[in-house]
Amino acid sequence: MPPMKETPSAPLHKPHAMSARFELIGVDWGATNLRAYALGPDGALLDQRESSAGVRTLGPGAFAGALADILKGWPGAPVLMCGMIGARQGWVEAPYCITPVSAGELARAFTQAAPGVQIVCGVAQRAEGLLRDVMRGEETQVFGAVEEDSSARLVCPGTHSKWVEVESGRIVALRTYLTGELFALLREHSMLGVPRHNSAFNPGPFTEGLERGLEDRALSAAIFSTRVAMLDDRMRADETGDYLSGLLIGAEFAGAAPRGDIHIIAAPTLAERYTHALRHIGARPHIVSPDRAVPRGLWRIWSNAHHDRPARAPG
Amino acid sequence: MPPMKETPSAPLHKPHAMSARFELIGVDWGATNLRAYALGPDGALLDQRESSAGVRTLGPGAFAGALADILKGWPGAPVLMCGMIGARQGWVEAPYCITPVSAGELARAFTQAAPGVQIVCGVAQRAEGLLRDVMRGEETQVFGAVEEDSSARLVCPGTHSKWVEVESGRIVALRTYLTGELFALLREHSMLGVPRHNSAFNPGPFTEGLERGLEDRALSAAIFSTRVAMLDDRMRADETGDYLSGLLIGAEFAGAAPRGDIHIIAAPTLAERYTHALRHIGARPHIVSPDRAVPRGLWRIWSNAHHDRPARAPG
Repeated sequence: MPPMKETPSAPLHKPHAMSARFELIGVDWGATNLRAYALGPDGALLDQRESSAGVRTLGPGAFAGALADILKGWPGAPVLMCGMIGARQGWVEAPYCITPVSAGELARAFTQAAPGVQIVCGVAQRAEGLLRDVMRGEETQVFGAVEEDSSARLVCPGTHSKWVEVESGRIVALRTYLTGELFALLREHSMLGVPRHNSAFNPGPFTEGLERGLEDRALSAAIFSTRVAMLDDRMRADETGDYLSGLLIGAEFAGAAPRGDIHIIAAPTLAERYTHALRHIGARPHIVSPDRAVPRGLWRIWSNAHHDRPARAPG
Repeated sequence: MPPMKETPSAPLHKPHAMSARFELIGVDWGATNLRAYALGPDGALLDQRESSAGVRTLGPGAFAGALADILKGWPGAPVLMCGMIGARQGWVEAPYCITPVSAGELARAFTQAAPGVQIVCGVAQRAEGLLRDVMRGEETQVFGAVEEDSSARLVCPGTHSKWVEVESGRIVALRTYLTGELFALLREHSMLGVPRHNSAFNPGPFTEGLERGLEDRALSAAIFSTRVAMLDDRMRADETGDYLSGLLIGAEFAGAAPRGDIHIIAAPTLAERYTHALRHIGARPHIVSPDRAVPRGLWRIWSNAHHDRPARAPG
């Protein structure tokens, strides 16, 4: 595609050396983090910033100020945001687009938070008239991770692990597993006695937990095996974190039934566990960094809103 | 059987109007509670006391004092204790008897905590050389709830819900579900948004959750449906506690597969939920109060230790 022209909505009011090159400011605004990406022509990543001003940290009314803070000194450009910022407890509630959803459909459903500041809607799945599952932010990562019009299976691991299916460029299904949240709750607050400190990934107890989680469909009973293994003096306390992590990922796999190529959108620590687990069951993992997927996804959705044909994604 | 005589180990050192009638002091000492039962001839319940001096509240070295406090003013008698007091973090660690286990076998395996003060061992199941599951205290409730030499299926619901199978008077199998603990963790600390206040049992959302938990074998994904139902405005926030409770009990039933007669050893509030749930799936619930099952069980185990044939359990 030809280099993009300045969009009419871009508030390029400041004369600035870099300003001609800022086409879009992409913002990933989650519960505990705020990330901003400065994108130039063709979506090239020019600069990026991060702060801990997450949606849950900030009170209502604090969002405009927090955005101005993180953008300070950058030339003005249209802002496109994704993530929890569009939730009920965010800046402005953005609706959910119902599956199947393409990047083009997301581009026609922005919600305006302020002049020049828009939010990508979330994605929801319905079945038999009922809402079945929802996500906010992962839809943008997904469109940044998959090629135009392709089909793929993806997982965005984390507090709430999201499994997403894409067919011919459209998100057709999603399912949320509470893997990360259950792990944190059980480690921090339960009677299992799993130590809180983090240590390096230990594949032995992780794989043992993984196999238990894959086989034992009674998760609330399988979790107790973490305690039993310690009572048996068969597992050291510092191994139980990896065992429990494997067990919960195994239970996730028992539900999601991954096979073939799976795209993992995750930072290195989590990606390592999912890669190990997917290889263990014979699937083929492909890691995509969220820091790459989010700006690519925002650019792709933005381009769909401003051009008849989709833009090339940034490198 | 004939009325029991004073046992040789009974330290009846104080002349006391009631002393001739105290045959045994039964103690149920759990993580957060201490209960004492004064038992007379034939195990008749003469008096009972309760305090919040649970094992987890007390530090090491505080157990003898806490026991003396709760027994103050009672005539001396041998003390038989069950529950977490025999765990690694309790007074003295009592071993586990391995299934199958009868009341008579428990009676031959007391652990002495102090002169005249003994602890009933826990019960564990092993399979393929590995420890599979454990319980402490529930074995005593079970022997207090079932008839001599009978066969039965029992559940002791709670923080850790224990399912126990008894065949011809012996515990042959047990399995622990983290139902109560998961409910508390998810309500107190998770992002689901379930209100913390307790309200009266609401069978509508409870049954909806129960059916979801029975059907959906991916528990860590099913739990997220609690949040989705709220986002859909299909469920009020004050209904989500009952929905989540039903869902976790449904997942427990999916694993335990109850049918026919099931004995529920639980206080009224929990018993009501399990009764409703068991009737819903066509099983026949029978409620036994722990305040009845524990002294009966302690008396039965004690009698096995002191007579060739088992004693009649108290009414």
